[in-house]
Amino acid sequence: MTNIPDSHPRAKSLRVREAMKAAVDAGLVHGTGLIAHGRGEAFDYLLGEQTPPEAKEAIRHAARLLSNAKQPVLSLNGNVVALAARQCVALQGALPDLRLEVNLFHRTPARVEALIRALGQVGASNVLGMHPDARIPGLDSDRGQCCQAGIGGADVVLVPLEDGDRCQALKAMGKTVITIDLNPLSRTARSADVTIVDELTRALPLLEAALEDLPPPADYDNNAVLARVRLRMAALMTSPDL
Amino acid sequence: MTNIPDSHPRAKSLRVREAMKAAVDAGLVHGTGLIAHGRGEAFDYLLGEQTPPEAKEAIRHAARLLSNAKQPVLSLNGNVVALAARQCVALQGALPDLRLEVNLFHRTPARVEALIRALGQVGASNVLGMHPDARIPGLDSDRGQCCQAGIGGADVVLVPLEDGDRCQALKAMGKTVITIDLNPLSRTARSADVTIVDELTRALPLLEAALEDLPPPADYDNNAVLARVRLRMAALMTSPDL
Repeated sequence: MTNIPDSHPRAKSLRVREAMKAAVDAGLVHGTGLIAHGRGEAFDYLLGEQTPPEAKEAIRHAARLLSNAKQPVLSLNGNVVALAARQCVALQGALPDLRLEVNLFHRTPARVEALIRALGQVGASNVLGMHPDARIPGLDSDRGQCCQAGIGGADVVLVPLEDGDRCQALKAMGKTVITIDLNPLSRTARSADVTIVDELTRALPLLEAALEDLPPPADYDNNAVLARVRLRMAALMTSPDL
Repeated sequence: MTNIPDSHPRAKSLRVREAMKAAVDAGLVHGTGLIAHGRGEAFDYLLGEQTPPEAKEAIRHAARLLSNAKQPVLSLNGNVVALAARQCVALQGALPDLRLEVNLFHRTPARVEALIRALGQVGASNVLGMHPDARIPGLDSDRGQCCQAGIGGADVVLVPLEDGDRCQALKAMGKTVITIDLNPLSRTARSADVTIVDELTRALPLLEAALEDLPPPADYDNNAVLARVRLRMAALMTSPDL
């Protein structure tokens, strides 16, 4: 691994990049996952690399939906596991009903197995995804495979860092979809029921805390939340302080 | 390589991704270069994937500075070579004094050699970088190595797709720095003398044309240009049509 000096002003970001590259080398992340990670980084710049109030509002609503769900499921792909395996396991600690399923765009049994193993190394057990027995209609062959005990039978699905096709296909199945996506313009962001516009490793501990201390019921308008976070990004884009 | 039909609405972008992946496999691009590419994609989306008028203004000023330079140098990294090796060689055709130097953040002699070979395959000769004999003060370890006949002795340096550290270190050496960077908020964009906010393969042919038909002298204010391109991106971010 390349030596990144502590003196570099973006040392943290550079180390995350190195970790993502290592995850590609380890077979956890597909090469195109690195390009997707970079797109996210760009939008995180526009948040000032901190959780905006809109994400906190979305997280509160997501916690309410997940805690009321009959079969809540967290869908995991390579980028999610590489960035936040520990935080995903901790989320399950705060909501024991939450089921974890590895569900991939570029699915190979070897990569599913490697991701389940990586999750096991940080304490996850009973992770679904190795033996799919259900399908998500509207997605082609490999991408549509899922588990009935997981995404297939879920009423509420948390799908972080996911592509628009999958998000829309889950919506078309009548599921409630929560996403974590730094790009408020993406099809995923715009088709989900709840869009948490925040960086994954910042958002998951906040969601965990909200599940442990459930906020009172409140109205929630995802389009209004997205419009506000876009205004926030636009304001940073044009801030004279920058 | 995956077959991408011309009819695909994002055919160009998908082909560029394929080329970048191939360049990683060939040892030309560091894995984290894919992340940087993704960041650029996000900002290019906010430009509507077309050269903005602000970039054209910056390109005209860059052409004037490069043509008046005593020792103009184009600094090349893996992403630049993977995306635009031919356009870099063509630029040298329009400005024969322009020296090319491979200069890497993640420097290994093998990667420098591979990049110089790739440049040679599209017609470049005398590419510097293999035998550094000078240093850029303020950069750690391998990153500060450069050639006196290139970047070390340059008065004007074109450093596309480069990190903020390098840009600031070159400025601190008293050099005039021109960059091509899709992120108008980056340290690179804000510390350069001229920031061309545009996609590399669109910008380089425009710079080549400007060098061949030099625009008349004109005032240039890089901060004002950056402010205008930021307003342009913010307008797209908050467009109600999205």
